[in-house]
Amino acid sequence: MPFIDDIEWDGNNLVPVVVQDVATKDVLMVGWSNREAIEKMLSCGLATFWSRSRKKLWTKGESSGNGMVVKELRFDCDLDTVVALVEPKGPACHMGYRTCFYRRLKPMAADGELEEIEERVFDPDDVYGSK
Amino acid sequence: MPFIDDIEWDGNNLVPVVVQDVATKDVLMVGWSNREAIEKMLSCGLATFWSRSRKKLWTKGESSGNGMVVKELRFDCDLDTVVALVEPKGPACHMGYRTCFYRRLKPMAADGELEEIEERVFDPDDVYGSK
Repeated sequence: MPFIDDIEWDGNNLVPVVVQDVATKDVLMVGWSNREAIEKMLSCGLATFWSRSRKKLWTKGESSGNGMVVKELRFDCDLDTVVALVEPKGPACHMGYRTCFYRRLKPMAADGELEEIEERVFDPDDVYGSK
Repeated sequence: MPFIDDIEWDGNNLVPVVVQDVATKDVLMVGWSNREAIEKMLSCGLATFWSRSRKKLWTKGESSGNGMVVKELRFDCDLDTVVALVEPKGPACHMGYRTCFYRRLKPMAADGELEEIEERVFDPDDVYGSK
């Protein structure tokens, strides 16, 4: 895979990966991947990231069961950002929402407060256990 | 805007901003914004970023004329990533494409080469001048 040598990794050897539902085109989450994670997405077709907090590779769904099948990866002009078009097997967000982007704010909104626009699909305690 | 105090800025006081076309839902580009850029997007409704290379605030379109009207900002569960839903006034990519993500690769593809899936809309030399 020669193009992988041209990827512009950041100072931590990562690139941001925007995960988009291939059917609805909703942005579900943004993760970070290193070379190994990109290679794994291309060889196995499963959404895979580098966890910056746990400092290890993780394949989405290994705890929750809510994995994502990668249909294609798109690369930007600078080769420093990736969009992964995926088929999600369940809600993307560890907080129990379909997408991590469940809150919005409109420019010039009167009150400047975040508005919740999604409903919770599961209780995180049921999926990850209470902590 | 009290929620802005809760944003989890990275080590450079930035958050990634995924720019999505509000009509087609295509991801057009990913930029980086600091607090001032987020505030400007909310007060003026124009896509605004921090240029990491030029180290200054930039409003998309100030060189190319291809600005973007921000219809809403979506915030993720961790408040460390933003999706901006925009109405683009022209092609997003400085290379002359509608979207920066004009190349793709499918998992388990035979040759592992990037495939171009968009056509150039303009010649960058015409818009930015030859360098």
